[in-house]
Amino acid sequence: MLYDETMLSRHMQPLTGSAIREIFHLLGKPGMISFAGGNPAVTALEPDVISDIAQKVLKTHGWRLLQYGATEGFGPLLESIAHFIESSGIKAQPSQILPCQGAGQALDLLVKATCNEGDVVLVESPTFLGALQTFLTYGVKLVPLPSDGEGVIVEEAEALIKAHHPKLMYIIPTFQNPSGKTLGLARRQRLCELAAGYGVVLAEDDPYRDLRYRGEALPAIKSFDKEGWVVYMGSFSKLISPGLRMGYAMSDNPTLFRKLVIGKQSADVHSPLLNQAIVDEYLRAGYMPGHIARICGDYKKQLTLMLEGLEAIPGIAFTKPEGGLFVWAELPEGMNATDMLREAVARNVAYVPGTHFHCEGGHHNTLRLNFSNSAPEQIRQGMEILKDLILEKSKA
Amino acid sequence: MLYDETMLSRHMQPLTGSAIREIFHLLGKPGMISFAGGNPAVTALEPDVISDIAQKVLKTHGWRLLQYGATEGFGPLLESIAHFIESSGIKAQPSQILPCQGAGQALDLLVKATCNEGDVVLVESPTFLGALQTFLTYGVKLVPLPSDGEGVIVEEAEALIKAHHPKLMYIIPTFQNPSGKTLGLARRQRLCELAAGYGVVLAEDDPYRDLRYRGEALPAIKSFDKEGWVVYMGSFSKLISPGLRMGYAMSDNPTLFRKLVIGKQSADVHSPLLNQAIVDEYLRAGYMPGHIARICGDYKKQLTLMLEGLEAIPGIAFTKPEGGLFVWAELPEGMNATDMLREAVARNVAYVPGTHFHCEGGHHNTLRLNFSNSAPEQIRQGMEILKDLILEKSKA
Repeated sequence: MLYDETMLSRHMQPLTGSAIREIFHLLGKPGMISFAGGNPAVTALEPDVISDIAQKVLKTHGWRLLQYGATEGFGPLLESIAHFIESSGIKAQPSQILPCQGAGQALDLLVKATCNEGDVVLVESPTFLGALQTFLTYGVKLVPLPSDGEGVIVEEAEALIKAHHPKLMYIIPTFQNPSGKTLGLARRQRLCELAAGYGVVLAEDDPYRDLRYRGEALPAIKSFDKEGWVVYMGSFSKLISPGLRMGYAMSDNPTLFRKLVIGKQSADVHSPLLNQAIVDEYLRAGYMPGHIARICGDYKKQLTLMLEGLEAIPGIAFTKPEGGLFVWAELPEGMNATDMLREAVARNVAYVPGTHFHCEGGHHNTLRLNFSNSAPEQIRQGMEILKDLILEKSKA
Repeated sequence: MLYDETMLSRHMQPLTGSAIREIFHLLGKPGMISFAGGNPAVTALEPDVISDIAQKVLKTHGWRLLQYGATEGFGPLLESIAHFIESSGIKAQPSQILPCQGAGQALDLLVKATCNEGDVVLVESPTFLGALQTFLTYGVKLVPLPSDGEGVIVEEAEALIKAHHPKLMYIIPTFQNPSGKTLGLARRQRLCELAAGYGVVLAEDDPYRDLRYRGEALPAIKSFDKEGWVVYMGSFSKLISPGLRMGYAMSDNPTLFRKLVIGKQSADVHSPLLNQAIVDEYLRAGYMPGHIARICGDYKKQLTLMLEGLEAIPGIAFTKPEGGLFVWAELPEGMNATDMLREAVARNVAYVPGTHFHCEGGHHNTLRLNFSNSAPEQIRQGMEILKDLILEKSKA
């Protein structure tokens, strides 16, 4: 007998893989300028620092980093993360923090803990496409949350909560992926009240908050949470290294937290202790503030260049983020960024078509542009190429 | 509103955590002799070697180990693993190997890919309790496979396949956890034929195969597989380090393999590149054969001491494994190893009650004993304490 597609689980049958990660396979082409992906700049990565830290922690902790560890995480790291997230207004006990394989795993565990097949989850539209794929593996029903320039419109969110009784709301509040938008202060507080008032768990995914190039930092949604409805998720992927796969969930809701732990125990037992100890030492030894200042300086210049490139394209609308890694652009109605990708890649420029970020599909005139992983000269060149391509297409 | 248990997902509500990992919390007590867990000996862990290798790979591969990587894994490691598993008779292409967070994640991804809620999975009874918990998070129905001294009885397996039409069979063929039994050669071939003949995916979990202290190595079930029904899963946790969390799945079934990759993409994007590169270099630089010889020498002595300790306890039956980490013991009917644990721990000896390894429960007269993580003197002492306790109980 041969194994065929129909034997797969119902949820996995339709999944064909993340659009971004498929685009990654195109990027090996020599000379490619990639505005796809969400990679940190290569110059933001510090192999020598990480090598020194790895040596140091293996000397300090010895075999303990190589033995099995607790699912709940490496004790010193829990303290370091609790301290690290204080600046967002979150008062966390170390025991309320669960180290995960990136914030992505934190979301996966939260969906596993809270959702049955067919349950409704409210998501921003557009939102992070990795999250969309995670939701699909659990067979939940996604309902899009309308936004304006300040992020999710809370009145609309309330109406959707009343209509659909969702189990979960998934929000990226700061320099949102893919839009670059930041949720306003009053809306943060109000969304938190809606979560507690209607009994909806709010997944706050905040991996970009420290990449701010202008404007004032806002407190996390979690900082307004009095009843434990918000699960805060962060990551060191954009700050230290995505390759180390270190993120975390924070929850002061003991019922939910315990199920995140049990879910992780079942999925992968615990996060690697060496990686946990490296991130702990990075935070503890004080590398982070200087590193953030340096990469924010570079990324700010790259963002400015990308926005200048967009200004030069007539008829295009785009966000002007205060931080993060992404700019969101809308071509005139009727143009198709999804179809245009092939030609862009042929001219050595890649981006992610915006349709992939919408749970309801459509929006083919939109695209996401990443600026962190391209040098200034590449951004100038790439935006010129895109401008020419868009102008040709708009005349066609 | 307050979050309560009834709001959790149906599958996660009843899960209260792995019995082993809860027992771990007792083990911090000073002087505790632990035959619980499945930890390698502390002396089997090599922090200095891993530190040197970490430095070397970060120097060689630089920022590439810190950037995002492919879900499919770090290319050199795929080659190294393909080469490493050749000795078990498996001819694997590097592209048929998926690095995972331990073999446990490989199983989690396989269940995700193949099983809907309510589907039947055949499991050995007893079997690895981490696997039992993983199955429960997917809401599958577990049916126990009867065994004798040579492992699963294939005629019974065939009858259960006909009766239940399972999606998956989960088999630990070599030095099984927890029984220590090894599946006979003819049975390996026959189980593989049953999988292909009836269309049941066979999850072959083989993390102990290189820890052989006597007897002849047997080819993996996978080595008999002509139609891609067996997914082979291995781990470096028992050989190099559990803390690094490196294992793998191998499948030459393109449909299944693709869904394992997509499942991993959704769960945690990819395994940490530093950890993948460390294991690759460990294999590539030739550390493994000498290391295996050294730890097998130690473990063989520890196993011998534990078997001697068991011989001295009248009325107890136990397995005599040719390798691995565990011995399985049965007290006389009517005795209760589950209840006895509290007293054993009070006398500073821990084990895992056998009931936890049985999907159907019961079997309270059984227990699992680990010998790898206790020094010879601890094994002598601990077995004396257990003997006294069992004798007292059997007279009571």
